[in-house]
Amino acid sequence: MSKDVDPADLMALCKRRGFIWPSFEVYGGVAGMYDYGPLGCALKNNIVEVWRSIYKGREGFVEIDSETVNPREVFKASGHVDEFADKITYCTKCQTPFRADHLVKEFYENPDILSLKELDEAFVKHGVKCPECGGDLGPVDEFNLMFKTNIGPGSNRIGYLRPETAQGIFVNYNNLYRYNREKLPLGVIQTGRSYRNEIAPRQGMIRMREFNQMEVELFVDPEDKGWVRYDAIKDEKITLVPNTTEQPVEMTIDEAVTKGIIANKVLAYFVNTTKQLLLRLGIDPARLRFRQHLDDEMAHYAADCWDAEVLLSYGWMEITGIADRGCWDLTRHAQFSGTDMSHFKKFDEPVEMEVDKVKAKHKLLGPKFKAKAKDIAVAIEAKDPEEAKSGKIVISVDGEDIELTDEFYEVVRVTEKVSGKRVVPHVIEPSHGLDRIFYSVLEQSYDYDEKEEYTVLHLKPEVAPIKVGVFPLMEKDGLDAFAMSLYEKLQASGLASVYDGSGTIGKRYARMDEVGTPYCVTVDYETLEGDLKDTVTIRDRDSKQQKRVPVDKVGEIIRNLMSGADFDKI
Amino acid sequence: MSKDVDPADLMALCKRRGFIWPSFEVYGGVAGMYDYGPLGCALKNNIVEVWRSIYKGREGFVEIDSETVNPREVFKASGHVDEFADKITYCTKCQTPFRADHLVKEFYENPDILSLKELDEAFVKHGVKCPECGGDLGPVDEFNLMFKTNIGPGSNRIGYLRPETAQGIFVNYNNLYRYNREKLPLGVIQTGRSYRNEIAPRQGMIRMREFNQMEVELFVDPEDKGWVRYDAIKDEKITLVPNTTEQPVEMTIDEAVTKGIIANKVLAYFVNTTKQLLLRLGIDPARLRFRQHLDDEMAHYAADCWDAEVLLSYGWMEITGIADRGCWDLTRHAQFSGTDMSHFKKFDEPVEMEVDKVKAKHKLLGPKFKAKAKDIAVAIEAKDPEEAKSGKIVISVDGEDIELTDEFYEVVRVTEKVSGKRVVPHVIEPSHGLDRIFYSVLEQSYDYDEKEEYTVLHLKPEVAPIKVGVFPLMEKDGLDAFAMSLYEKLQASGLASVYDGSGTIGKRYARMDEVGTPYCVTVDYETLEGDLKDTVTIRDRDSKQQKRVPVDKVGEIIRNLMSGADFDKI
Repeated sequence: MSKDVDPADLMALCKRRGFIWPSFEVYGGVAGMYDYGPLGCALKNNIVEVWRSIYKGREGFVEIDSETVNPREVFKASGHVDEFADKITYCTKCQTPFRADHLVKEFYENPDILSLKELDEAFVKHGVKCPECGGDLGPVDEFNLMFKTNIGPGSNRIGYLRPETAQGIFVNYNNLYRYNREKLPLGVIQTGRSYRNEIAPRQGMIRMREFNQMEVELFVDPEDKGWVRYDAIKDEKITLVPNTTEQPVEMTIDEAVTKGIIANKVLAYFVNTTKQLLLRLGIDPARLRFRQHLDDEMAHYAADCWDAEVLLSYGWMEITGIADRGCWDLTRHAQFSGTDMSHFKKFDEPVEMEVDKVKAKHKLLGPKFKAKAKDIAVAIEAKDPEEAKSGKIVISVDGEDIELTDEFYEVVRVTEKVSGKRVVPHVIEPSHGLDRIFYSVLEQSYDYDEKEEYTVLHLKPEVAPIKVGVFPLMEKDGLDAFAMSLYEKLQASGLASVYDGSGTIGKRYARMDEVGTPYCVTVDYETLEGDLKDTVTIRDRDSKQQKRVPVDKVGEIIRNLMSGADFDKI
Repeated sequence: MSKDVDPADLMALCKRRGFIWPSFEVYGGVAGMYDYGPLGCALKNNIVEVWRSIYKGREGFVEIDSETVNPREVFKASGHVDEFADKITYCTKCQTPFRADHLVKEFYENPDILSLKELDEAFVKHGVKCPECGGDLGPVDEFNLMFKTNIGPGSNRIGYLRPETAQGIFVNYNNLYRYNREKLPLGVIQTGRSYRNEIAPRQGMIRMREFNQMEVELFVDPEDKGWVRYDAIKDEKITLVPNTTEQPVEMTIDEAVTKGIIANKVLAYFVNTTKQLLLRLGIDPARLRFRQHLDDEMAHYAADCWDAEVLLSYGWMEITGIADRGCWDLTRHAQFSGTDMSHFKKFDEPVEMEVDKVKAKHKLLGPKFKAKAKDIAVAIEAKDPEEAKSGKIVISVDGEDIELTDEFYEVVRVTEKVSGKRVVPHVIEPSHGLDRIFYSVLEQSYDYDEKEEYTVLHLKPEVAPIKVGVFPLMEKDGLDAFAMSLYEKLQASGLASVYDGSGTIGKRYARMDEVGTPYCVTVDYETLEGDLKDTVTIRDRDSKQQKRVPVDKVGEIIRNLMSGADFDKI
């Protein structure tokens, strides 16, 4: 497979054959926006199905679908309102906006960590001017990358398009926890649109303003970071780039955990699951590695974070991140929403513990509150001891709020049997950039033979948008009707098929090879009568082998081939 | 099946069991927004797959996935910027916004056709005040229902969240037409989010601010409104409510076409396809009808339009619209984008026709334009004769615009052989409200026995979120391990399954019935040893019948049952 793909050639193919179209092209287009054409949409959906089959099928996770427009509160809690920003500068002459860090990238190794002031100074120091018109650059400012809108009439209720699907899972934690009958681990997946209002998008499908994610949020007991199927994969090998050495090294999953390179078993398991997913989608193992975030790159709350990187014509590119996010997300939403988002962890058997309790002073309550005294006592004893220690509490009885001082209660320390405790689950998050995976699968399967001027996409049959091309040798003498009826049968059975009757058979093979169709079937005169009646020729894209098979077995044979059967043995 | 469902009961079930959750509930919620929980997401995805299997599988249509944020130009052309609005009024005292027409609906049969002025007057005439505080209502105004945002930094580029998925197909017409090798018919489907920023959403999932559509746009030759598979369905019966009588009447598809009730065969075919789809999803045929739009309800450009309506607790509710939109959409986008969006229709054989041609006056061009005269003549003769008749044209030669009067050309009528002509395709659009279909399927399958306090969802197996519940009789003695391993096998094979070991078997059946799981399998002591070793009990939700079957056949049996096999004969 050719490794020096020109992305422009690939995108030209994508456009010509209906994988990807720049959005709104008839209206001049919008940077960073792409539509999935018929073949692209099918390939994308097939990728999602493989991901689902691993997470829902094998791991038994559940899938949800939450809203893309969210009220401000959600992203205030998640930190996106305050921190999801790039640094922007406008040319003072032509008013073109630029990402400030991109303008000084030749002078700094990590320009994205420079402050506003440092960027202003860098422009002066290095004489950076507007790349468009040579004008002076204005002061650097923060530009929040969320698309902003209003929910309902007026501007009272600010909404944002979600920058990640994950928050929709976090805000539903309590619903999901109840659905899972209050047990951990709790694995949840979501796929859908996310949005990032880039200042000046470049690099084609790598940086899109409207993009697709496949995110997984696994809530685990913070004191149990193993995984039930860990032992089955612990000896699988993987290429890691630890942040200590920054050098790629191959080792087993278990070595990585034992040596403390990957923080824990459950994180390591899902790093490996990501590897399995990407290989199954057709990513070349020799061009895949897992790079650990550097200390200054890692979110302050993350216990550990790894990026799946693939080698593309752009260089090594992150297409999935796998992080142990600790208790950050649930703690923030619990705090901002005033809702408990924890897990009640039962001890194996009840434990004797010293705990504080609020005790009502019944003797004083009776005379003062008469008939209500009993209800008031119950309400007092239900209060949080920490709150009661302040010397004043407010209780609610029959809809009436009553303020009481510690004249009427006391906080006492008692020993009691406790059956468990509340813990905030930790989150393991494999977050997949669907469009980037899509692009990577295409680029790594793209094979252009310059001498022959022949293009093949070596897509895995499982993800190929079309599974079979059905051709009549000639479009006459009933060959066309026979082929059309075979096409309709295959298509209706759920095998994505096309019928093609135009041009030479060679041209038709070429058209199918170019879009990665793994199998072609040709109906010829022998299909209609003679010894080979009711047989057709099936041809394998990669080996270019051909075989004659009974027409009524074609569907079954293709399904077997797609499940890994050997073409030689069909 | 009970027909008097209380939507509140159904929504309570949906919430409790993880079908649907009001979005952002921990932050107080947002009206008109709902999240799909694990069971809802699965049911929704299953509905989409049935729709796909009909349109992609049987009809061979292609699917695309276009962006949800669109620049203003798209919706200027589609008419949404100017016309996609509701009439709003704010209370002058408490500032609450209201849909003006909703406030006068008791006084008018069609309040939504009243003008701004008529609504203002209606408030005075009928003494309508703010329903919240009794205050006076302010002047009625238009409120555009599209969510507005900005693309990129600054406010130069206005974007809107799409109000329908259809526009993404129309603006890609030329890409799709090329993909289809410039042939008609061209069928395209798209599913995804659309947005409608309701003033005050009510009626639960019926009117959502963020909703899901399954849209189909079929481009046809305006002179050929038949359909290849029409004859196969022309004798199917359907309940229609024509706009002439406004009374339901049952007739065959072909009767409806022959009598001119449905405008043409291709529209009638897809009205019938909608019926097939809805019945397959589980809609009750006795509570389904197709209502033709009244004359004042129909868009001015539509040749004909039918709503699939189902009977819900809310009354008859539109869940799909099937329209012949004529050439409206492509004509508008062609006009606004300055792009040709037509189809070249080849005649069976070339035809002699009188046509107008622009002829350059070479004798006058030569002296005036010298070396450029030849290029100018070519450019002149490429002009549109209609435009040239105005007496003045502008041509572009070597990047220079040159204005010429008819001193230098003439328009002449000539006879020539023409191989075809350009026509603007007509659009047949079956547009499905996915959330409404989802809700209707649930409501019509909801069966609550008050005496027994027992709920069953009679979901079709094909759409049920869980296909099989796997139970150990007791969670001990190896029954649990056996059942768990069966569950894992079924789940990994793609049959959505759950394992449940808690409570009595009766309770576990009840839990599965309540979420519409069609089959349950129980592992008991006889499974482990004796004559019935390696057999399990399978139970049918609707008949409550039970049978003993070999454990290694369970997956196959369930797949056969799902394809319509008789439970008695397994």
